[in-house]
Amino acid sequence: MDQDADYEYPDLDPLPTKIEAEIIPPCDPTADDRLYHICITAISFVVMLILAVLARRTKEGYRQKGLPGLLSPVNFLDHTQHKGLAVAVFGVLLCKLWGLVLSPNPLPFTADAENKQYWVILGVFYYPALYYPLLACGTLHNKVGFVLGSLLSWTHFVVLVWQKIDCPKEPLIHKHYSLFSSLPQIACLAFLSFQYPLLLFKGLKGTEKNNPTEDLSSSYYKDYVKELLKKKTTKISTTSTETPKLPQRIIDAVKSYIYTPVEAFRFPLKLAVSGVVSFIAVYQMALLLISGVVPTLQTARSGVDEDVANLLAGFKIMLSPDKSEVVRIVVYYMWCVEVCYISAITLSGLVNLAMLMRSMVLHRSNLKGLYRGDIYNVYNCQRSIRASRPALVCWMGYTSFTAAHICIGMMIQTLVFFLCLLVAVFLIIIPILFQENLIVFQILLSMWPFWLMIILAVLIQHITGRFCFIKKDGGTRDLDNRGNLFLLTYLLFPVNVLIGVLLAVWRMIITALYNIVHMGRMDISLLNRSVEAFDPAYRCYAHYLKIEVNQSHPVMKAFCGVLLQSVGQENNSAQRSRDAEEGIQLVQQEKKQLKVSCTKRARRNWQLLYTLVNNPSLVGTRKHFQCQTAESFLNGSLNRSAKEGSNKETEPTASD
Amino acid sequence: MDQDADYEYPDLDPLPTKIEAEIIPPCDPTADDRLYHICITAISFVVMLILAVLARRTKEGYRQKGLPGLLSPVNFLDHTQHKGLAVAVFGVLLCKLWGLVLSPNPLPFTADAENKQYWVILGVFYYPALYYPLLACGTLHNKVGFVLGSLLSWTHFVVLVWQKIDCPKEPLIHKHYSLFSSLPQIACLAFLSFQYPLLLFKGLKGTEKNNPTEDLSSSYYKDYVKELLKKKTTKISTTSTETPKLPQRIIDAVKSYIYTPVEAFRFPLKLAVSGVVSFIAVYQMALLLISGVVPTLQTARSGVDEDVANLLAGFKIMLSPDKSEVVRIVVYYMWCVEVCYISAITLSGLVNLAMLMRSMVLHRSNLKGLYRGDIYNVYNCQRSIRASRPALVCWMGYTSFTAAHICIGMMIQTLVFFLCLLVAVFLIIIPILFQENLIVFQILLSMWPFWLMIILAVLIQHITGRFCFIKKDGGTRDLDNRGNLFLLTYLLFPVNVLIGVLLAVWRMIITALYNIVHMGRMDISLLNRSVEAFDPAYRCYAHYLKIEVNQSHPVMKAFCGVLLQSVGQENNSAQRSRDAEEGIQLVQQEKKQLKVSCTKRARRNWQLLYTLVNNPSLVGTRKHFQCQTAESFLNGSLNRSAKEGSNKETEPTASD
Repeated sequence: MDQDADYEYPDLDPLPTKIEAEIIPPCDPTADDRLYHICITAISFVVMLILAVLARRTKEGYRQKGLPGLLSPVNFLDHTQHKGLAVAVFGVLLCKLWGLVLSPNPLPFTADAENKQYWVILGVFYYPALYYPLLACGTLHNKVGFVLGSLLSWTHFVVLVWQKIDCPKEPLIHKHYSLFSSLPQIACLAFLSFQYPLLLFKGLKGTEKNNPTEDLSSSYYKDYVKELLKKKTTKISTTSTETPKLPQRIIDAVKSYIYTPVEAFRFPLKLAVSGVVSFIAVYQMALLLISGVVPTLQTARSGVDEDVANLLAGFKIMLSPDKSEVVRIVVYYMWCVEVCYISAITLSGLVNLAMLMRSMVLHRSNLKGLYRGDIYNVYNCQRSIRASRPALVCWMGYTSFTAAHICIGMMIQTLVFFLCLLVAVFLIIIPILFQENLIVFQILLSMWPFWLMIILAVLIQHITGRFCFIKKDGGTRDLDNRGNLFLLTYLLFPVNVLIGVLLAVWRMIITALYNIVHMGRMDISLLNRSVEAFDPAYRCYAHYLKIEVNQSHPVMKAFCGVLLQSVGQENNSAQRSRDAEEGIQLVQQEKKQLKVSCTKRARRNWQLLYTLVNNPSLVGTRKHFQCQTAESFLNGSLNRSAKEGSNKETEPTASD
Repeated sequence: MDQDADYEYPDLDPLPTKIEAEIIPPCDPTADDRLYHICITAISFVVMLILAVLARRTKEGYRQKGLPGLLSPVNFLDHTQHKGLAVAVFGVLLCKLWGLVLSPNPLPFTADAENKQYWVILGVFYYPALYYPLLACGTLHNKVGFVLGSLLSWTHFVVLVWQKIDCPKEPLIHKHYSLFSSLPQIACLAFLSFQYPLLLFKGLKGTEKNNPTEDLSSSYYKDYVKELLKKKTTKISTTSTETPKLPQRIIDAVKSYIYTPVEAFRFPLKLAVSGVVSFIAVYQMALLLISGVVPTLQTARSGVDEDVANLLAGFKIMLSPDKSEVVRIVVYYMWCVEVCYISAITLSGLVNLAMLMRSMVLHRSNLKGLYRGDIYNVYNCQRSIRASRPALVCWMGYTSFTAAHICIGMMIQTLVFFLCLLVAVFLIIIPILFQENLIVFQILLSMWPFWLMIILAVLIQHITGRFCFIKKDGGTRDLDNRGNLFLLTYLLFPVNVLIGVLLAVWRMIITALYNIVHMGRMDISLLNRSVEAFDPAYRCYAHYLKIEVNQSHPVMKAFCGVLLQSVGQENNSAQRSRDAEEGIQLVQQEKKQLKVSCTKRARRNWQLLYTLVNNPSLVGTRKHFQCQTAESFLNGSLNRSAKEGSNKETEPTASD
């Protein structure tokens, strides 16, 4: 009413003109989604047929990649494969799944929003099938395949871009949500549209040396083994410095969050896919959280008028006698809420990206550790690294679970960070800025004798602990003045209970924050070390690692490669066209079929033994053609090296 | 309005007659608290003076317990001490602290409620001093001391009981709260009043053989060593059974929560005090939580009348057209809330008691583990077990921190359990009972295709994993049909994302529940194993254990006892009256002072070496009088045995 209101809340433009509830008409793109899907499904089917015919024809050819190869276009256990195609297709799939769950009519064939659930279920199986040819075209390493792949990916890409240009605004969630949400999908398709022609070009020029399927003949595994053998000399010097200082430790901690590629180590395909899928999940989740809430908040803010003063008065809240002043304050507060929310999402996104990078560092060290048999260090208990049913199920789901955990993790993080920021802003920052409602500070200040007592009690204990009760004598420390120590302990018992309450609150905060921040990471358990396996995500990760190490040990692969090569030198072409992926079985068959000379066999056995001694985690996979004595010897060395590994931080190298 | 309301909510007696707001007059007990405190303070002071004179007189006596002994009446590091006195006094102190924080006038000397804070701070130091004579009277092992102790404890006990009989009802929190809250205090004082006469009686009869201060001459340590040496034969047979079956594992898990005393192991006093203090904390917290909320809820329930129907109608909630029906429903709902709340508190209390017992089991195994040098198993890393400033501070505060953590833990547990129970009751149980508002079930039921898909997808993965993709061959398992495995992995990617969401939610629930349930326990870290030390409570416990093991290793004490005995046999009385607690220093002095014959010394050195080899954690404490060669040898064996310990679950015994 009167004019003396000297509130200094900044006069925010309450959004220049009030946002009119913009009605976005349902947009029908020129490339009708329904028609497009019917066509592309048919085209994909035809492409698959052509590929099948091609595969049948090339079956007797030189690469032993017939129909079976076509039906398993991705080798998830491979380190050397070109990862781009698979990663891009998985990215597209995730984006599609996202749209499927959120969109009111999940499949373009129908507008039947009532039975959405059934359509979602159908879509969940339809989309992988739809994008399958995009993967399959690259499998045959055939020029026709590449041409078809190029055409298919171009079609997908062009139609999607065309649709988005036609209808940049859609009514779902927010007018631009649909556009932004499809950006990763467009990027993935663009990558595919670029990659297939590149492959075709390389195929035409005949330079496609680094053939993805010829896994064992790749030089990578040999490089890995060479690197292992090389490292030894450099390692010893670094372990001599024992206790790093604080700045060094901080730098190390920061460094452990930054993933730097190492020449002699590549991720298996599944981990690479998981990484990219996780990244897309972070993007999509952040986009959803922002576009789902922020526009609503903005609309609400722009809609604040003088009625709000009456409403607040109804709840007996009087912010100011002047109604326009009340509007300004309310608008300002709502703006603060908005800022908090956006900050929370940003923070959560950044945290998840940092966690993603840290995960990659940890994946690498875990894989390397398990390769050299360091089971105790990785799992904190002895486990047999071999394939089993639960391990296989976890392995199959790992990539998907990662994405899902990141989504749930981000939701919780955003919620918690938002609440924390709200509390911080409205109880601490705004009161300080405007020097009013300093309730928290007043309470804390009025408790100064209490704080003083706590601080003094802590100080007394530390000082007496340092100077009165500990006696340094000849390099060791021992207790001194025990009587007084006991007396002080007794007298400070009640004060320490009060200190303990603060400590418990601090424990609660730190535990909750840690667990919330690490919610999206599957590679660490959120539970205590003795019950780690009860954390379903960590359990899954542990099982996943088992399969990964059991099936794609680089030294094993290098060994198989060397063996295949030497076999190939002896009896040429025919035997060589075996499926390279089934190396171990192959070795067994070869052994039975061929009469290798006695010295050759002895040398090979010796190489095998040598490899296994230095890579004990391989032993489990080949027990069935290992003679008994060597086995017991190997088991002994396995246990020994596992024990040593559990106490060393340095990397025991593969030679002795 | 009409009569067709066929709600079947049970017609609870809305508390027979409405609870009239019972006004409890401030009660002045015959034994006025103020007068009593002034008297008892003076009496305590006089008692202390008498004890001091007595102590000065007996200083030259046979027990070397003069004023220094009086000023440190409790040896927290002792295993063999009679624990009753100290435990009871600490219990009383905790109850007093409780009253101090809650009561409006914390100290009886004043009714100045305005400066409560200052009085609380004063009280925090006043009460330990007030109850100090109760401990000190038992220190001298003198008949006069016991008589004074008896008198003092009787006075405390009688006055407290008298006050409570005079004024059973007090206005604070709830009329009976004060009475129930003082029950543990009464119990502790009753124990003291019984114990002091018993000690006096024993002293008169001269049967007090098991002299608390004569720690080293107790047979306990020798028994411990004997037990260690004995165990070896029985242990080997039990380790042969390797993988226990599920029922056995469940039984073992349950057993690990039940503390069964073992003859050859006793807790140090500090742990015993912590246990009892924790128990009292659980009782007090549960009492506070119940009496602070339940009466309010009951009053509110009894106050429900037909106005509530109008109020609800104001919020547009129509439970029933009939107003008396509405009252019945509301009363019933409030009764449910009450039941939930009480169940939550009961559950929380039981959980904490179970945790307390589990903690004791873990304390014992940790202490035993550290005694035998099993550092890696307990701490999950190598640490030096020696006294340091932070370790000492943590050791001093440990008992208090335990109590505080249990209180905070119980508060959070009650809150969380209450919310969970509310959700369960109002969304699941009540809807089932009355067959209405089955919202959750309807939602779940309407999603049946989704659940079916999830279940089928999981089943398919498990079944194919078991029968198609794993090949058992000669005792090992290997992957089979890799191509199809990869294909299935690709096709099920979107379904697995949905499964992953469920898994992530499950992870969240299980992690939160675990951490909340274990909030009150300091002996486990709530964080991941790699950052365990960031949990302040666990860090404190780890430090506490260090001091405990470093200073009260039973084998060390047995060794010191044997040494003292043999010294005593050679030169009698005079040397023997050393302070037995300072055994290690004593050994050193003795060594310098006495000219022991060469063979004796050699034998002693050999015994020492033997002891240290089998108890490597002792090495750190006595480095300063150990020759260099033996030390390096011992360090070697320390590392070796620590490594072995980290991989074995069985207990390595002290002999070889």
